[in-house]
Amino acid sequence: MLVKGKHYRTIWLKEGDNNIIQVIDQRFLPHKFVIADLKSAAEVVLAIKDMQVRGAGLIGVTAAYGMYLAALEAAGSNNFGEYMAKIAMDLISSRPTAVNLELAVNRQLSIIERGETVEEKVALTKAKAEKIANEDAGFCESIGVIGVKLIENISKQKNGETVNILTHCNAGWLAFTDFGTATAPIYEAVKKGIKVHVWVDETRPRNQGASLTAWELLNNGVPHTIIADNTGGHLMQNNMVDMVITGADRVTRTGDVANKIGTYLKALAAGDNRVPFYVAIPSSTIDWDISDGHSEIKIEERGEEEVKYIQGLVDNQIVKVLITPEESPAANYAFDVTPARLVSALITDRGICEASEFGILGLFPEKIES
Amino acid sequence: MLVKGKHYRTIWLKEGDNNIIQVIDQRFLPHKFVIADLKSAAEVVLAIKDMQVRGAGLIGVTAAYGMYLAALEAAGSNNFGEYMAKIAMDLISSRPTAVNLELAVNRQLSIIERGETVEEKVALTKAKAEKIANEDAGFCESIGVIGVKLIENISKQKNGETVNILTHCNAGWLAFTDFGTATAPIYEAVKKGIKVHVWVDETRPRNQGASLTAWELLNNGVPHTIIADNTGGHLMQNNMVDMVITGADRVTRTGDVANKIGTYLKALAAGDNRVPFYVAIPSSTIDWDISDGHSEIKIEERGEEEVKYIQGLVDNQIVKVLITPEESPAANYAFDVTPARLVSALITDRGICEASEFGILGLFPEKIES
Repeated sequence: MLVKGKHYRTIWLKEGDNNIIQVIDQRFLPHKFVIADLKSAAEVVLAIKDMQVRGAGLIGVTAAYGMYLAALEAAGSNNFGEYMAKIAMDLISSRPTAVNLELAVNRQLSIIERGETVEEKVALTKAKAEKIANEDAGFCESIGVIGVKLIENISKQKNGETVNILTHCNAGWLAFTDFGTATAPIYEAVKKGIKVHVWVDETRPRNQGASLTAWELLNNGVPHTIIADNTGGHLMQNNMVDMVITGADRVTRTGDVANKIGTYLKALAAGDNRVPFYVAIPSSTIDWDISDGHSEIKIEERGEEEVKYIQGLVDNQIVKVLITPEESPAANYAFDVTPARLVSALITDRGICEASEFGILGLFPEKIES
Repeated sequence: MLVKGKHYRTIWLKEGDNNIIQVIDQRFLPHKFVIADLKSAAEVVLAIKDMQVRGAGLIGVTAAYGMYLAALEAAGSNNFGEYMAKIAMDLISSRPTAVNLELAVNRQLSIIERGETVEEKVALTKAKAEKIANEDAGFCESIGVIGVKLIENISKQKNGETVNILTHCNAGWLAFTDFGTATAPIYEAVKKGIKVHVWVDETRPRNQGASLTAWELLNNGVPHTIIADNTGGHLMQNNMVDMVITGADRVTRTGDVANKIGTYLKALAAGDNRVPFYVAIPSSTIDWDISDGHSEIKIEERGEEEVKYIQGLVDNQIVKVLITPEESPAANYAFDVTPARLVSALITDRGICEASEFGILGLFPEKIES
């Protein structure tokens, strides 16, 4: 997608030095556009942990590149396998909720087995990282082409009037290699000349909506308005939202959706006001091993400082300010689970389906257990 | 209630100079405790508009004191009545949603009629302002004594284990003259030795929860934890909330509740998880003239800067920082309407009742239309 008119992905091999990974450092957005070099597997682990990169797809892709850097490092050690296993563990435990991370790491561990020499193993992890990055972008592009039909239908029902779409957090291209999931149909709609307007949930406590989604919509010329997370229900009660599209960090085979904290509240409001609630995901977000989102998905708890302090710009400096009494404790649950019953449909790279085991398996027949 | 161990109300006549009103300037909380002098009716209007004081009860009481200052000023003008009518209009239009404001101003306009001389009129508005302030505190105290039973019942069901109460915005003593509404039963429970813990919704965009409710609970020794507004649904799904208590800015005679934006979302989550959802209000918050909250309550829209900028403390300075792309627009609806069907009961100064015309009129039989 575009940043000040120039095309970027969120992650790439550095031109001229393929032993370095470059990423858009998302901690400084929307205020400063910073490109960071990741020079070692340890730096990749830290980049994921500190949310230099974030978003279900992108942390998977980043982990895949991290495994490539790990292979480069392991090539110089006595025990290639042991080193790779250690980094794999570090990467997997760097963020607990998104399934993409574990999947990408495991794919890298498998591919290593195919190489006979250390050089082959390194080359294989590099190729695999590139493949996972391209796959991720491809999944998102497909979601856009498939999901735009839902927007198009509403546009027709409204005789071409603006379609108002609410989204939560950032399931935009910044959360993937490119295009995004929730945003992909929106970008596709704009490309097709359909009039859209996006209500951007601020998404406390880390404000991914206000700082990332708004920034990428702005850079790509999509009309939008930032709102406090509290606002969506009121808008839906007043017919100011035609549809909700969010992403997900993990979806069970039965259609339960783990996504950014607060998604569940918007799904309830959508249900109460008969506003369609869609979840856009690449296949890689489906966790085929679990059926009950509520009991089986581990919800990450992050530090209280993310609630008590907020980052912003003053006098062209990025500073963190305290917004609570210093002595008051805060809790910071990063995700919640929206039960499948509240999801109108899933928009996947293979098509649109009901958020149920029946619906999902219809698109992924290879996952039917014999 | 207590501030660093000393008892305060939120508003009072200045000792030694009864022509000046003093208030706690809530714009600097929780970082600085500032007492402000209001020396004219115009300053009172501004104090309400700029949210130096806020909260349904307190803006009513402040307006009552404002009418007293107006009477002092009018006494020196040629046309007492005209001046009072002008200030009354300014006060009523300073904030549109809470009914208390209009009610307090109209009571002052009525009392003026009873005075024969200008001196009498001034004395009557002063006495009436004091009466409205005391009434407000008295209503809240009663709400505490009545509402504590609901907490006590849950405490018994849990064999004395901690009762977890979620609240949204600030319906604490800072929103009234004293005690608060949503907080009154909580303070009363603490006084009775019942173990409670309060989940404090941050309440974006103005953060009245994180900055005011947390501050007053802290000063009065009530265990609490601040959470992002997105969090309540997840907590309720996981049995971490035993009850919700919020305040209201206006309640229809049929039990619809206008309260801080986001209240509706919490009510939906409470309903979905069978968590009781209570709304604590003084009688003065009931608008007897309207029956449909959705169509009849005007929802205040405030400036986008409240969403785009946030105030916090850094290096012991209170600063405002930008938290969105500068060019992105934002919308700021201050309240929403929770339909009566989602409210388990109203806690009023007269008792607890169903959120319905039948329930409310049971406590206020004098309002039954013949």
